[in-house]
Amino acid sequence: MTDSTREIVKKVLEGDIRTVARLIRDIDDNMPGIRDVLKALYPHTGKAYVIGITGAPGVGKSTLVDQMIKHLRQKGYTVGVLAVDPTSPFTGGAILGDRVRMQRHSMDKGVFIRSMATRGQFGGITQATRSAIDVLDAMGKDIILVETVGVGQDEVDIVKTAHTTIVVVIPGMGDDIQAIKAGILEVGDIFVINKADRDGADRTLMDLRMMLEMETDRERRDEWAPPILKVQAVFDIGVEELLETIERHRSYIIERYGDLKLRSDPKRVKESLIQMLKDRLFETFLERISKSGELERRVDEISKGILDPYSACDILLKEHVV
Amino acid sequence: MTDSTREIVKKVLEGDIRTVARLIRDIDDNMPGIRDVLKALYPHTGKAYVIGITGAPGVGKSTLVDQMIKHLRQKGYTVGVLAVDPTSPFTGGAILGDRVRMQRHSMDKGVFIRSMATRGQFGGITQATRSAIDVLDAMGKDIILVETVGVGQDEVDIVKTAHTTIVVVIPGMGDDIQAIKAGILEVGDIFVINKADRDGADRTLMDLRMMLEMETDRERRDEWAPPILKVQAVFDIGVEELLETIERHRSYIIERYGDLKLRSDPKRVKESLIQMLKDRLFETFLERISKSGELERRVDEISKGILDPYSACDILLKEHVV
Repeated sequence: MTDSTREIVKKVLEGDIRTVARLIRDIDDNMPGIRDVLKALYPHTGKAYVIGITGAPGVGKSTLVDQMIKHLRQKGYTVGVLAVDPTSPFTGGAILGDRVRMQRHSMDKGVFIRSMATRGQFGGITQATRSAIDVLDAMGKDIILVETVGVGQDEVDIVKTAHTTIVVVIPGMGDDIQAIKAGILEVGDIFVINKADRDGADRTLMDLRMMLEMETDRERRDEWAPPILKVQAVFDIGVEELLETIERHRSYIIERYGDLKLRSDPKRVKESLIQMLKDRLFETFLERISKSGELERRVDEISKGILDPYSACDILLKEHVV
Repeated sequence: MTDSTREIVKKVLEGDIRTVARLIRDIDDNMPGIRDVLKALYPHTGKAYVIGITGAPGVGKSTLVDQMIKHLRQKGYTVGVLAVDPTSPFTGGAILGDRVRMQRHSMDKGVFIRSMATRGQFGGITQATRSAIDVLDAMGKDIILVETVGVGQDEVDIVKTAHTTIVVVIPGMGDDIQAIKAGILEVGDIFVINKADRDGADRTLMDLRMMLEMETDRERRDEWAPPILKVQAVFDIGVEELLETIERHRSYIIERYGDLKLRSDPKRVKESLIQMLKDRLFETFLERISKSGELERRVDEISKGILDPYSACDILLKEHVV
């Protein structure tokens, strides 16, 4: 370990805001050198309770997270927040707006809020988020809230990291619930119907209940029936009940796994390792074949019709994966 | 090439429906042996015109595709349709419903419709779709319509394969357009406001126009300003204009690239090869470390706290990627 790595690790463990902020930005940008820091931090992780909050744009996730922070702080917990937006820079404005809503907590030293915005050319947001969670964990935050826009596989992978995953919907989404939420429904431990004063909240409740009952591959369905809560985050209605439900889910996990260290659960460890390998593998491989000029050569051959892409793929894999 | 491969290739080139259907299912299931068939078919591809149709659930993509088929058939073109739904099996019902709407064309031998439903454990839908397009191309379809639910990176990657990409929205999606469509906007060659008789169509038109003007990284923006069309697919209003606009875009491509063989454009070839490598690479790698027992051993070590996942990753990559 270099002196600089040692210094960063020390400062993160002391909870130094500036160091943590820079490290998370470096993770987001996939800067070289972060892995040594992450390795050294790893033994200091596994203490935080991680809560994932996901749902389509516009369901009020940020407002809910903002209220959850308030309640958690009142109970004396320190809180880390990661807002994950693997969409294009194009939406920067809207997303910054959301973040601003949480800024009332920005003067509170017990709260640390960061956005993960950039997604590398070939994904990697999942691994970057997992690493950022490790950092907030190592810096000593009791509770980590991870907010994602629930629209893709990336988001599903990210919330799998959480101890408790909350899926947020709003009334009147109609068929959209069925279509958009597909993969997300399966990972939800608790469902929140936000803006529950709107028309159609009971209908949404019924729809959700029915869909959850239809699920056949929910591993834990016999043990933990996901509760559905009506919330009005903007008026702070139902948020306390949500936190109590999270607490109940936490007790369930401890009972089931013996402790909160999901990272000692081989199934989760395997998923997480495979995810990390996937990102790193491609990065490593692409770098090799780019540097050596092989990629360009094969592209050229395909463009000229000398080689088909399937054979090009076979050749490159055969030469580089042993 | 084995006799069986040769036989499949021959039948695909003859346009044998049953063989093509089975091959596409095999591609979707990632069955062994498909790559030899695809290699042999490759020289017979590159003739079809590929149109991507994407948009959120509920915007009426299937109805639009259904009408497009009708118009294209009237003009004498043969049509292949791939409906790509990389969501969980959970939504099977809804999606089947959509497909049924197109079934009025099922007795027409000039139309071939298939869904790509399964997504492998670690992605792969993009590559599977590209391969299925190649098959429809080789079987002799003039026009291939690829319908995807526009919510994730996978969908963006898939429509990149198309000559012309149509993004479908509906009035009154409000902020959602901004949030959900991010990555999709950038790939749209033509925008369709479907259900344009609904309130707010003009507002949506203005919003879209503004967002397209805000785009700075649109490579072709000076050459091809994406038109925005108002359509009522269910009443067949605006569909003919859409097809004329596609025709205009086709002329633009020919003018720009010299021909329609985007596959000879090195930039597209490179993107496509990288995508294929990504899927295959991980599959190959995971198979190796699973069979050899290394994956399980490392998972075990991480679970027991002997090894951290970052180091495990380093070790596995070092041993297998040269």
